[in-house]
Amino acid sequence: MPLKKNSNRLFEDVYDFIVNRINRGEWMAHEKLPSIRELAKELNVHRLTVFKAYQRLKEEKKVYVKDKSGYFIHPGSLEGFEHIESPIYTSRVQRSYLSEIHQIPVTYQFSQALIDPNLLPNHYFAEYVKKVFDLYPKVLGTYSTVQGDEELREALAHYFRKRHQLYVSANELIITSGAQQAINLISQALIKPRDTVLMERPTYSAAIDIFRHQGAAIIPVDVYPYGYDIEQVERNMKQYKPRLFYLNPTFHNPTGYTVPTEHRKKLVELAEHYQCLLVEDDPFHDIYFGHEPPSPLFRYDTGGYVIYIRSYSKYIAPGLRIALVASRQPLMKILLTIKSLSDNGTPLLNQKIFLHYFLSERMQQHLEKLRIALNIRKEIMEEAIASTGWEWSSPKGGLNLWVKLPDELSSQSLLSKCIERSISFVPGNICDPLNELDSWIRLSYSFVNERKLTKGIKELIEVYKTF
Amino acid sequence: MPLKKNSNRLFEDVYDFIVNRINRGEWMAHEKLPSIRELAKELNVHRLTVFKAYQRLKEEKKVYVKDKSGYFIHPGSLEGFEHIESPIYTSRVQRSYLSEIHQIPVTYQFSQALIDPNLLPNHYFAEYVKKVFDLYPKVLGTYSTVQGDEELREALAHYFRKRHQLYVSANELIITSGAQQAINLISQALIKPRDTVLMERPTYSAAIDIFRHQGAAIIPVDVYPYGYDIEQVERNMKQYKPRLFYLNPTFHNPTGYTVPTEHRKKLVELAEHYQCLLVEDDPFHDIYFGHEPPSPLFRYDTGGYVIYIRSYSKYIAPGLRIALVASRQPLMKILLTIKSLSDNGTPLLNQKIFLHYFLSERMQQHLEKLRIALNIRKEIMEEAIASTGWEWSSPKGGLNLWVKLPDELSSQSLLSKCIERSISFVPGNICDPLNELDSWIRLSYSFVNERKLTKGIKELIEVYKTF
Repeated sequence: MPLKKNSNRLFEDVYDFIVNRINRGEWMAHEKLPSIRELAKELNVHRLTVFKAYQRLKEEKKVYVKDKSGYFIHPGSLEGFEHIESPIYTSRVQRSYLSEIHQIPVTYQFSQALIDPNLLPNHYFAEYVKKVFDLYPKVLGTYSTVQGDEELREALAHYFRKRHQLYVSANELIITSGAQQAINLISQALIKPRDTVLMERPTYSAAIDIFRHQGAAIIPVDVYPYGYDIEQVERNMKQYKPRLFYLNPTFHNPTGYTVPTEHRKKLVELAEHYQCLLVEDDPFHDIYFGHEPPSPLFRYDTGGYVIYIRSYSKYIAPGLRIALVASRQPLMKILLTIKSLSDNGTPLLNQKIFLHYFLSERMQQHLEKLRIALNIRKEIMEEAIASTGWEWSSPKGGLNLWVKLPDELSSQSLLSKCIERSISFVPGNICDPLNELDSWIRLSYSFVNERKLTKGIKELIEVYKTF
Repeated sequence: MPLKKNSNRLFEDVYDFIVNRINRGEWMAHEKLPSIRELAKELNVHRLTVFKAYQRLKEEKKVYVKDKSGYFIHPGSLEGFEHIESPIYTSRVQRSYLSEIHQIPVTYQFSQALIDPNLLPNHYFAEYVKKVFDLYPKVLGTYSTVQGDEELREALAHYFRKRHQLYVSANELIITSGAQQAINLISQALIKPRDTVLMERPTYSAAIDIFRHQGAAIIPVDVYPYGYDIEQVERNMKQYKPRLFYLNPTFHNPTGYTVPTEHRKKLVELAEHYQCLLVEDDPFHDIYFGHEPPSPLFRYDTGGYVIYIRSYSKYIAPGLRIALVASRQPLMKILLTIKSLSDNGTPLLNQKIFLHYFLSERMQQHLEKLRIALNIRKEIMEEAIASTGWEWSSPKGGLNLWVKLPDELSSQSLLSKCIERSISFVPGNICDPLNELDSWIRLSYSFVNERKLTKGIKELIEVYKTF
């Protein structure tokens, strides 16, 4: 439906344009149309032409006029919508409720576990990027390999050996665009519909969406401040023969709990015995307050049963989206095939920027500062909710508080009220594979600054008191 | 299996390290082990320690020694491999043969349809990147939205209106990491196992892999220099009720053919009538020699039946991996859910760099030069094969020649011989959903320079003559 400027039927073209959009279901009943001025500008036609088209739509009761405020879609005009939907809406797509919460712009953002961009060394990043272009003048003209830049993988393998005593070779690493892509690749590579997957309860809600979308049956494993109920894990492995156990044992999301070393070793034994892969997601390893956390499970794995995901997306450079997956052969081959189908490799530029920044002294200094800043924010949040009677276990790292409200309170109702006051958080049920835990909430202390944090929590408590 | 330097059992640790790798199947029978010096360095132990471990492995017949050339894996040592494989290798993963060809480093690279990085304005790119950091100092600390940067989508929507008379709003665009991700998202969003998909024959081999991986049954549609056999298309739509038709109607990959406007219009009508979505992949639209190609099918679509993929990954900035999908609601909602599961959004940095480069005057100048350079390379390649008796239809755009060799010749056998001479191309069967067309080959003229092109084709013809 191109609009030809020299057409005699210009106003009819505009009319068709709008009708097509209505028929496609792009506008809902009672939704406001663009103003005459806006649409004239968008379509590059005279305002009078749009006015004429709107008048005809009004005559045909496709739109109605409300006071002086504009043109609105008439509910009766929404025919043909079902007709188009039918061939499309039959696939099994899970809606991600969390991303809807994240899309609501609020002043007091406690829902996204993101680092406040003001805590990142932005100016320093820019310097590094220039360095990368000097080193690799053709970086923008070059594809990465599917597995990821070899120089980066070599550097990371070296770093893991030195820093974590993790013996892994560059061939056992694959670079992904964020941890979410890593989880999705693993799910696509290993899960067939009706396969069983163990997941912590609560857990990272995007991971629930991913495994569910792949058709997995999810068996929950409870997490406690002291780790797992190992007998429950073994019972589940024995009974359900799960293909994998997705876990986040270090400053666990959302609870902040850390699984102790003896549980880690035991889990690897169980995995080997019951042939259940362990998918260890470890995005917060470097965000500790006080002591460093225990070594990853991956360190205790000799049989190739642990797949290790390490994301640097959150706290080094969110705009780069760099994460890695460490896995032994032959699993790596399958992951590479899926990565190749997915996007043929993470952009080379992002890998090269990350490489040089990651290896710099400055990065370690940045991390140290970041830990301090986040710990302060955590303590401010804990102080702000101290008098409420809510319960939580103070985390030793990570970005979130996992808070228990009184049993009778629904976190979802609380959230609805809060959003009206421009406050967001994650209601507990979203983090629960069973969709319960409704009297829990996850509060992220990483995104808003100290002043806003205090003010926002105060307002949240006010809303809470109205319940 | 961490190696502790103070352990008394250090040589046994090294031994275990190697045995674990053998058991994991990381080394094949008769594969060479790292040298004693290399492994000692990798594990940070004394060479004597590695030597002792290797001696024990030799005694146990896990490895054998060949002359003076080193230690090799004994075939009998590869037990336990199957044991580990079993829980892993049961998923339905298709191997991508093409990516294997691409991974072979050759001097005369005619297999990858990539632009020679020397033809891209690399220095100019670097300038733009600096500009981007001045404009958006926090770009590395910020996530993109799932749909893609709004500023970029607005700019692209405007560009499509002005340049192609395609009326599309920013809300109808989604930014992806390359066209491959776009095809994969569409496949995941719309295809269930055993759904039918129409594909051109031949076609883009990665797309075959993607739809097949999703479990689709593929029905081929022949392409000719004059377009499609429209009756065949209609017959297929009627009989197989395909969910979608994946097509590449402009400087088609691999043939270079362009489908004329009347076929485009007719296809859109058929799509609407038989409720078959058209997935129009259009990566070469701007790579024309002479006339501009006809408008995309997307322009003729009023019912929301065309999904339009436009990649800028190939010829603007391969290192950025930017492509877009244009689609009407409600399809967009599903694509966004899948994009959200896949990677939660393409990195913001890449989108901002692309935005500013794409809108620059320089980009248009670059494109004009690129077209001339590619046309010259095409003509050189055509001249070089003119005397062979091979058949092809000279393309008016794109990056490839699709060449018919004599019937009795197998392109796969020819490829094996060529790779020995450091020449690669794509054998026709890979581009064929039926895995036939074995006497055809795809030769890309975009990657190697004029001198190498002449030399490489000359060598290729020499190999051919030995058949």
